[in-house]
Amino acid sequence: MAGIQASESIHPFIPTDLILPDYVPIILSQSTILTVYGCASFLVVSFVWILAGRFPKISKLDKVLMCWWVFTGLTHMILEGYFVFTPEFFKQKNPTYLAEVWKEYSKGDSRYVGRDSAIVAVEGITAVLEGPACLLAAYAIATRKSYSHLLQIAISLGQLYGTAVYFVTSYLEGDNFAVSPYYYYAYYFFANSFWIWIPSLIMIRSWKTICAAVCTQEQKKSKTR
Amino acid sequence: MAGIQASESIHPFIPTDLILPDYVPIILSQSTILTVYGCASFLVVSFVWILAGRFPKISKLDKVLMCWWVFTGLTHMILEGYFVFTPEFFKQKNPTYLAEVWKEYSKGDSRYVGRDSAIVAVEGITAVLEGPACLLAAYAIATRKSYSHLLQIAISLGQLYGTAVYFVTSYLEGDNFAVSPYYYYAYYFFANSFWIWIPSLIMIRSWKTICAAVCTQEQKKSKTR
Repeated sequence: MAGIQASESIHPFIPTDLILPDYVPIILSQSTILTVYGCASFLVVSFVWILAGRFPKISKLDKVLMCWWVFTGLTHMILEGYFVFTPEFFKQKNPTYLAEVWKEYSKGDSRYVGRDSAIVAVEGITAVLEGPACLLAAYAIATRKSYSHLLQIAISLGQLYGTAVYFVTSYLEGDNFAVSPYYYYAYYFFANSFWIWIPSLIMIRSWKTICAAVCTQEQKKSKTR
Repeated sequence: MAGIQASESIHPFIPTDLILPDYVPIILSQSTILTVYGCASFLVVSFVWILAGRFPKISKLDKVLMCWWVFTGLTHMILEGYFVFTPEFFKQKNPTYLAEVWKEYSKGDSRYVGRDSAIVAVEGITAVLEGPACLLAAYAIATRKSYSHLLQIAISLGQLYGTAVYFVTSYLEGDNFAVSPYYYYAYYFFANSFWIWIPSLIMIRSWKTICAAVCTQEQKKSKTR
């Protein structure tokens, strides 16, 4: 019995019957994890803001959008990419920062540490396809490409679809994957909400811009007839 | 033991340890199911083709696209909508045609009859959001709305995202949900492939059209400066 218990290990996640053999407890504190993520994001955003200023005719809103796309793109590629391609992150004897992030986040949604296939599928699509597309979107804004708004709509839609699958699957499976209401609202609900309202706002703006462009184009066509 | 076996019932699906209490066997043959779907689709397509001809300046390609959007929209809303909102379809004593469809399809992918949450989530988004949007796309093409191409891209992207989640989750879970290679290739692979290549082609076309419109618009802007 003792042998089985040791190999199954004790973990802090919900549901408690989740089996995580060789689980290594979290070492870093929540504040350390958040501070590192916050500082890294601040550095990235500052760098993009300065870089964006060197492109001609860039509005303030475009600069903000470039910061968002690089921030979310790197989050998708590095943070979520690590999760997708490191199935055994919770077993690492000398855990990296990224492993600690996902063990900490799993307090809000244990389907991450439990490797739920819907989560891995959505995160895989996000990391591999949407991540690089986000960086392309920042480049497209800076260089005023004709596909800029279209690409922003496409990625935002993907982010919204992914978030929808994320929340709906949790609801269908009983919505009981958080250690406490605090982690449920802070990680599962609040942290993810940014990937609902920001893509929604971007979609509305780019949708209007494209419709206006197509509209003007068609009016000119019918005038020249 | 006999009592337990009776309540667990015997079903034809893979994996064999899938528990489907009160499962009622399929009555309709494969050919009947496919003939009804084929005839209904033919009627819908014919009706849309004739109706589309009454709108001014509609190209042949636009007529084909309107047929596709109405066909796929009704498939999403009726067929997939039924699946989403009828969790116990496999238990019906006097099964409807739609219940028979999903029991038959489950021979190619038992996650349907087994009510896998990723499947239900994707089908839910498809039936509730994409279905009505498809009908709107057909209307937008007929009435030459400025958002027509954008809407077609948005729905096509959603269909591609859904299909990606569908295939990736199956792969992650061992890809062993079909009764035989015949059902695997005919239902899981071939039937779904239409929702990969058709949305892809539509996306490429509409993407090019919008980029061209935005491009012309921007050239005119810089000329007038």
